[in-house]
Amino acid sequence: MTQARRHHDPAVKGFASDNYAGVHPEVLEALALANGGHQVAYGEDAYTAHLQEVFRRHFGERAEAWPVFNGTGANVVGLRAMTAPWEAVVCAETAHVNTDEGGAPERTAGLKLLTVPTPDGKLTPALIDRQAWGFGDEHRAQPRVVSISQSTELGTLYTPEEIAAVAVHCHDLGMLLHLDGARLTNAAAALDVPLRALTTDAGVDVLSFGGTKAGLMFGEVVVVLDPAAVRGLVYLRKTAMQLASKMRFVSVQFEALLAGDLWLRNARNANAMAARLAAAVREVPGVTVTREVRANAVFAVLPRDVADRLRKRFRFYTWDESTGEVRWMTAFDTTEADVDAFAAALAEEMAQR
Amino acid sequence: MTQARRHHDPAVKGFASDNYAGVHPEVLEALALANGGHQVAYGEDAYTAHLQEVFRRHFGERAEAWPVFNGTGANVVGLRAMTAPWEAVVCAETAHVNTDEGGAPERTAGLKLLTVPTPDGKLTPALIDRQAWGFGDEHRAQPRVVSISQSTELGTLYTPEEIAAVAVHCHDLGMLLHLDGARLTNAAAALDVPLRALTTDAGVDVLSFGGTKAGLMFGEVVVVLDPAAVRGLVYLRKTAMQLASKMRFVSVQFEALLAGDLWLRNARNANAMAARLAAAVREVPGVTVTREVRANAVFAVLPRDVADRLRKRFRFYTWDESTGEVRWMTAFDTTEADVDAFAAALAEEMAQR
Amino acid sequence: MTQARRHHDPAVKGFASDNYAGVHPEVLEALALANGGHQVAYGEDAYTAHLQEVFRRHFGERAEAWPVFNGTGANVVGLRAMTAPWEAVVCAETAHVNTDEGGAPERTAGLKLLTVPTPDGKLTPALIDRQAWGFGDEHRAQPRVVSISQSTELGTLYTPEEIAAVAVHCHDLGMLLHLDGARLTNAAAALDVPLRALTTDAGVDVLSFGGTKAGLMFGEVVVVLDPAAVRGLVYLRKTAMQLASKMRFVSVQFEALLAGDLWLRNARNANAMAARLAAAVREVPGVTVTREVRANAVFAVLPRDVADRLRKRFRFYTWDESTGEVRWMTAFDTTEADVDAFAAALAEEMAQR
Amino acid sequence: MTQARRHHDPAVKGFASDNYAGVHPEVLEALALANGGHQVAYGEDAYTAHLQEVFRRHFGERAEAWPVFNGTGANVVGLRAMTAPWEAVVCAETAHVNTDEGGAPERTAGLKLLTVPTPDGKLTPALIDRQAWGFGDEHRAQPRVVSISQSTELGTLYTPEEIAAVAVHCHDLGMLLHLDGARLTNAAAALDVPLRALTTDAGVDVLSFGGTKAGLMFGEVVVVLDPAAVRGLVYLRKTAMQLASKMRFVSVQFEALLAGDLWLRNARNANAMAARLAAAVREVPGVTVTREVRANAVFAVLPRDVADRLRKRFRFYTWDESTGEVRWMTAFDTTEADVDAFAAALAEEMAQR
Repeated sequence: MTQARRHHDPAVKGFASDNYAGVHPEVLEALALANGGHQVAYGEDAYTAHLQEVFRRHFGERAEAWPVFNGTGANVVGLRAMTAPWEAVVCAETAHVNTDEGGAPERTAGLKLLTVPTPDGKLTPALIDRQAWGFGDEHRAQPRVVSISQSTELGTLYTPEEIAAVAVHCHDLGMLLHLDGARLTNAAAALDVPLRALTTDAGVDVLSFGGTKAGLMFGEVVVVLDPAAVRGLVYLRKTAMQLASKMRFVSVQFEALLAGDLWLRNARNANAMAARLAAAVREVPGVTVTREVRANAVFAVLPRDVADRLRKRFRFYTWDESTGEVRWMTAFDTTEADVDAFAAALAEEMAQR
Repeated sequence: MTQARRHHDPAVKGFASDNYAGVHPEVLEALALANGGHQVAYGEDAYTAHLQEVFRRHFGERAEAWPVFNGTGANVVGLRAMTAPWEAVVCAETAHVNTDEGGAPERTAGLKLLTVPTPDGKLTPALIDRQAWGFGDEHRAQPRVVSISQSTELGTLYTPEEIAAVAVHCHDLGMLLHLDGARLTNAAAALDVPLRALTTDAGVDVLSFGGTKAGLMFGEVVVVLDPAAVRGLVYLRKTAMQLASKMRFVSVQFEALLAGDLWLRNARNANAMAARLAAAVREVPGVTVTREVRANAVFAVLPRDVADRLRKRFRFYTWDESTGEVRWMTAFDTTEADVDAFAAALAEEMAQR
Repeated sequence: MTQARRHHDPAVKGFASDNYAGVHPEVLEALALANGGHQVAYGEDAYTAHLQEVFRRHFGERAEAWPVFNGTGANVVGLRAMTAPWEAVVCAETAHVNTDEGGAPERTAGLKLLTVPTPDGKLTPALIDRQAWGFGDEHRAQPRVVSISQSTELGTLYTPEEIAAVAVHCHDLGMLLHLDGARLTNAAAALDVPLRALTTDAGVDVLSFGGTKAGLMFGEVVVVLDPAAVRGLVYLRKTAMQLASKMRFVSVQFEALLAGDLWLRNARNANAMAARLAAAVREVPGVTVTREVRANAVFAVLPRDVADRLRKRFRFYTWDESTGEVRWMTAFDTTEADVDAFAAALAEEMAQR
Repeated sequence: MTQARRHHDPAVKGFASDNYAGVHPEVLEALALANGGHQVAYGEDAYTAHLQEVFRRHFGERAEAWPVFNGTGANVVGLRAMTAPWEAVVCAETAHVNTDEGGAPERTAGLKLLTVPTPDGKLTPALIDRQAWGFGDEHRAQPRVVSISQSTELGTLYTPEEIAAVAVHCHDLGMLLHLDGARLTNAAAALDVPLRALTTDAGVDVLSFGGTKAGLMFGEVVVVLDPAAVRGLVYLRKTAMQLASKMRFVSVQFEALLAGDLWLRNARNANAMAARLAAAVREVPGVTVTREVRANAVFAVLPRDVADRLRKRFRFYTWDESTGEVRWMTAFDTTEADVDAFAAALAEEMAQR
């Protein structure tokens, strides 16, 4: 009997972030299943071996799955393996890798990011061209990779065709395409396509496949879709401090997620709850939903005093300090009751004005 | 019901490494306890808050606990927080940070390691002086930190007095003392002293406290014992890609380990099994135990053909290719039966000669 | 008698860059003066000691002069000394440090640059605010320094008052101000103010003072105006590979430039020749000067076929591939005859259409 | 007429370091020759083009010459171009790159150095094997390059045969050979062989060719002897801040050194003066020359009080604080009178005891 104690109320949920949620029960079960006995450390275990099959089923025969600890790690390891030390990455100004990783790509990997402002978090061939130039000029960090996020940090989606157009453009330029898929499952569920439609089949070379926000305890996977696009990944994962010793416990979680349809059930629930939330808040006069709701994010503008009071009841983040725009996220475990309670609280606070 | 499957035989154990073992059942229980509902991500959860108390109980009132993913991460984040970008770390040539982290300190953090050969993996003031010089000379990476391992990579131990002597010497030189405690619990159990006797009370400034090898699923903690010894740790942990989003699941594991006596039970078992193993193999003619067995490591020399045959039955590592010296590790879950079976197999293979 | 031979025609000059020019004869003389006998290496020589006085005369009593090899080195060493490894630099998108150093700040120093689009290469307090936020948030690289260029990469100038306003804003935010002064002498000459009016007196904390473009053979100086703004500069210069062994030959060049009025004579000539060039090309129908000409740069748009033909006679750079805008630079050694010949060639090529 | 002034006495010389010396008059002449008019910056000038021929004459048809600013820069750029970010460099513990560059390789380039203790500063195949292992093991920084110094930091020399043996061994291991030739000219002069006998013909892949200590004002050259051994050098030189804008003034100095026999005259003089110095001090009872004198370094042990008094008259360095061993260096401009005066001073101080 464990000597740890419960310190929180499992009934309390919110809309701040999909990584405020816990672990899906099926994932906990899987962790127990993988326990017991000894398994070779650092990825030579049976679970990581099997994981290769699981990923190949989703991403095609050439796919290689390299488990890591977290999303920053997946992005840095993947991008580093795609670039030489003098090469650079083109990404949207709003990309997580640019805004939310504390400068990890620059500081830990020496990666130069060439950023492009976008209206909706999405890159296009024309936008890429604003930074993809100067090839061969030693005074310019050499553009080598384009990194896109699906779904984006603004909750928007690329269609498979849009990703394919970006991939063709990258490859035409002699560049490679990286996809930050921290919420790839939400995108696939929203578009009702298989995971490979947005990745392998669209021409993506390397993918950060997100697990934590999809219901795992921890863990992401660098998925190499074109083995010719990377170099030294096994060493880079180690030096990036992203090599788990008891890797079986990362791998089995992804098996729980991807062997059956757990990924889809979780993503569909989160997306449906975001749609429900958007519909509910659109009913509240004085609150404006500011962006199309496609995946599991709802962006809105509401009076600052209302936001402040609501925040005392539910924690959430301001997205843009200058406009007061806020972001609400749903998760695999968000229920209709959670949404309805939040919308009711919002309506109450609006009514207080 | 999870869609993952079991891929291994939980009855099989070996002596290759303490991180081939799985997770102690009490730790799995604790993970379930912390699940459910929403908790603020990135360390602002109730479990990480409570963890501070748990660590202060063991390490004194000034202790701060910063959970990270793995041992390389703990060492790099801790050492980075103790050094400016022009400062260097004195360590034994055999230190894990020098030999087994793929160059992560140099590559990821730009850290220069100033190494010293030692007979037994242990530094002394006199050995430290072989590298702790050149203060103020810009041509020399400035020695700022001494890093020692307890127990060492060779299974040897520092007494509290030996650590205190190193600490006094460091501080006299204007340097700081870091302790890599991936196996600190084994050392404390072997010496029958509390954890603080080897750390806080001995003058250690910053500690990497190991959880994975002690029976956790994953996770280590950078423990700051003197807050004046570090700078920017909160940012360095993030840029080192060691910030877990669902941190409650790291913290609750350490609570399971340290709130009661699980750490001690696990360490005592591993140490006792190493002693039993050493005793058993000493009975086998032609096998020599090469180093004093104090914690959970047994080093031995045996004929190469015997080692090769034995390895087909149990995986383990050669420590020194030139001498054929091998290393056997015990873990929290090693049983007397495991030891006896291994010793019997060794005797059988020796008899085959 | 040297065994080297002359390989170029000293009569040929152009308008591609101020560092296509050679060395001012007074600087060559100074180099000869400093030669002979032995001087302590690495900056402990009499010339570098005297240089401190020379810089204090221009920049005030607290100024410290740290000679380095080149502009990239000066910027990286200065910025690194102003920042901890988790801190970031706000600069204009067009800043040399962002666009023309091959990613050296990121790759060599791990520096994250937070860039801001500007109409004219100049930052203002309002523009700085677009990136100077998120203090204390570990997910965001911490804004610590604002870096401005004077004159800017677009040939524009900050008035002393504009710099002072930026400095006050930086300091109010707890940030520091860095000035990239690769062409500071041109700015001071154009504004007819002493060097300190644009730096020390305006509140700049650290300055890259440019020598190469001002008529030296090589060499720049990191000038620390507020010693409290930097840390470890002596070590950072060494590890940035910017420590000259025979430093007397860097220092004496700056003495030649700054002990008297050579800096001003050189800058005035370059500025006057740019003004003459701008006036001349404005006379040519079909050529548009696109930016105000204040220092030694002239930007213009002309038909692409004309540019191509003209380039066969004089090498120069396209500034903006999309608009065809070109950049012409004048130098300390540009003569009226050089300008007139170039303008005539331009007119000839235009007439060919 | 320059406004700089002379601040030193050109008659004073010493034995502290060969980079306390100034510039050979023929080199100053060459600098003047290259001056005047405009030349394309950053290495596209006529002098750098011609330099390729000069180096090919000495080092063979495949040689490429990449001028940089200083020795640290040459070593870091060369080694970086030979390694991927997960690869490491085997060198002697006494190698300049390990002891005297302030940690630049680790901090600026993330390079892990795998050091080997040696009796005389020289590596052998057997010594290399102490670190050249663990290929394919991600926990170990991957040995990729062996770096040797010629002449070594201890004044010792490799014969052409010894270098060839090291090269064969490297290549057999799939590794590359780098030679730090800060004093290669002294070695070639001492051994009375052409430069290529110690480099190209012996199987060296990349060379740092030293100019500063050989009588130049500044400048070293990364000489690529096997173009297949490097990758991205043009970009790495830029990001290492080693790209001179007015490169003609680096290149013409090397032309002055290598087009005729200046390199040999300078090296022979320095070597001869070291031999004269060694002979003279061997005559002084109580002073012991501790190492064979082959190039331009003399190591000796003398009473500490004598060293202290002598140092008041001539600056020089203690090599080993523990033994009191000192190092005296001669330079291209050391004269017989300089040596005799120094030896007389030493004898006087010894007589004072």
